[in-house]
Amino acid sequence: MSYVADHGVPTLEYLHERFADTRTRVSAAAHRTPVVTSRTLDARTGAQVFLKAENLQRMGAFKFRGAWNMISRLSRAELARGVVAYSSGNHAQAVALVARELGAPATIVMPSFAPRAKLAAVAEYGAEILHYDLLGEGRDALAVRVARERGCTLVPPFDHPDILLGQGTAAAELFEDAGALDALLVPVGGGGLLSGSALAAHWLAPTCRVIGAEPAAGDDAARSFRSGRIETVKDPQTIADGARTPSLSELTFALIRAHVADIVTVADAPLLAATRFLWERTKLLVEPTGALGVAALLSGAADLRGKRVGVVISGGNVDLEAVVAAFAS
Amino acid sequence: MSYVADHGVPTLEYLHERFADTRTRVSAAAHRTPVVTSRTLDARTGAQVFLKAENLQRMGAFKFRGAWNMISRLSRAELARGVVAYSSGNHAQAVALVARELGAPATIVMPSFAPRAKLAAVAEYGAEILHYDLLGEGRDALAVRVARERGCTLVPPFDHPDILLGQGTAAAELFEDAGALDALLVPVGGGGLLSGSALAAHWLAPTCRVIGAEPAAGDDAARSFRSGRIETVKDPQTIADGARTPSLSELTFALIRAHVADIVTVADAPLLAATRFLWERTKLLVEPTGALGVAALLSGAADLRGKRVGVVISGGNVDLEAVVAAFAS
Repeated sequence: MSYVADHGVPTLEYLHERFADTRTRVSAAAHRTPVVTSRTLDARTGAQVFLKAENLQRMGAFKFRGAWNMISRLSRAELARGVVAYSSGNHAQAVALVARELGAPATIVMPSFAPRAKLAAVAEYGAEILHYDLLGEGRDALAVRVARERGCTLVPPFDHPDILLGQGTAAAELFEDAGALDALLVPVGGGGLLSGSALAAHWLAPTCRVIGAEPAAGDDAARSFRSGRIETVKDPQTIADGARTPSLSELTFALIRAHVADIVTVADAPLLAATRFLWERTKLLVEPTGALGVAALLSGAADLRGKRVGVVISGGNVDLEAVVAAFAS
Repeated sequence: MSYVADHGVPTLEYLHERFADTRTRVSAAAHRTPVVTSRTLDARTGAQVFLKAENLQRMGAFKFRGAWNMISRLSRAELARGVVAYSSGNHAQAVALVARELGAPATIVMPSFAPRAKLAAVAEYGAEILHYDLLGEGRDALAVRVARERGCTLVPPFDHPDILLGQGTAAAELFEDAGALDALLVPVGGGGLLSGSALAAHWLAPTCRVIGAEPAAGDDAARSFRSGRIETVKDPQTIADGARTPSLSELTFALIRAHVADIVTVADAPLLAATRFLWERTKLLVEPTGALGVAALLSGAADLRGKRVGVVISGGNVDLEAVVAAFAS
């Protein structure tokens, strides 16, 4: 169950051509989110920072873009058979929302212990929720089985060209709206947003260094970037729940090796401080995963003083009480 | 100490001409804040809602606009003598920030029991803080005395044409960015934002009904609007700390009577629900005062189903822990 194993590595030419169509497609359905600046943030980091506020995207995260790009390409017959996804986070909400908009039934495989707010959001979008059993088959295996049995389309969270190209449209908009950037900081979990952003930079802003920002407890991508092979992490404990993914995929890793300049890591304490900073100073409600890039700047993990720096704020879906309690700890 | 007593009521022609210059002046220094939409909000209200996100304004509230418009008009000699303001809220931060940018010393008269976060923000902008004694002279009297003794300029929170015209620039931008609106909902405290917005509508969107939204516990403006004379309220207990102003001024009341369609009120419970809704669904960190317009829609106080409705989100300066605790109560 890997895109590359099934289809091979897509060529850069194919991806480039596909990206043009992706941009048209995504811009017709997604919000063009604003670019937010803060003089206080500039003063604290010594850089000129441009925040791409994907927390203001539909369903509250960039994930809408990739899901729309993939699902909107399905035929009428495929849409009628439906889509399935496994995720306890923003990808689940994105697939549920896009499926509803396009009139496709959606099945989301989620753990029964997922936060109630996330279960409720997916249910509100009209998706069927399938709980998986931790002791039985894994969630990916269950999703694959559902796809086969129901004849519906599996929408993976990152391991697909249309997903990562869709995610890359946020960076493309930022390059247009903020002008020339020296660097772009992007959160990294499974690498869909990072690889898509790196491709967008390759085509639209070739002098911009794209840098991944990862939680220290789940540093598989940073280690993979250094070792040259896919490293994994098991159930990392971090407040950045959007970046707990066990590993990159062959596809995202190949693109990240080719087009990303560096991957830095941030511990949870500076990550929470950066999250609170964004809430209080920019008035953007950002989830901790979405604050990874700003945390990398504020903590010094990425030293970009004197530079023009873009940062993708990936999302804003938080459990308010839990995050405010974590601020106090 | 009233603008009208000292200068008379300015004519509409004067205000109109002054507004053109105000727009140029304010747009050179303030953020053009984004207009945010939410399909969930549209579904809940039955209206098509356009949020003018002034919580993303510099220092976190629309107050920057009026302060900049007034202080940037001072001569070099006046700037050197400095400015003084009395406020425990966003106006204090606005005057302190604008004064620093323009190189003017600022004195802010604040109660010693003001929230520490607000005292810290004003001090961070380099202003001198003067505590007033609740048992001695009032804060207005103290500010007037400071202005006289130091020869500096008093910057009132709303009772001045340049202040309210500056505040009106947010509505002007919204009319340009959102297209034709049937109604505009605006929080009301001293009436600077409401009267400025109503003037902007009068000149730029004459078919748009401008409606004030006020906390039920501090409903002096709504009562004044109905009785035809300025009513007051004493130290109202409401979570909307930006709208605890004891009364409108002669100037703002005259403009509100002439150009505002209605003033509605919202109790604290629906106001807190609307605040939380905005945080969770639009990812905008909004202070309760800033949620008054959305609360008026969600609670049914303003029934604008089927209409295109603008809402000014006035600010986002909150004490996080206090508001989250209030959510739970």
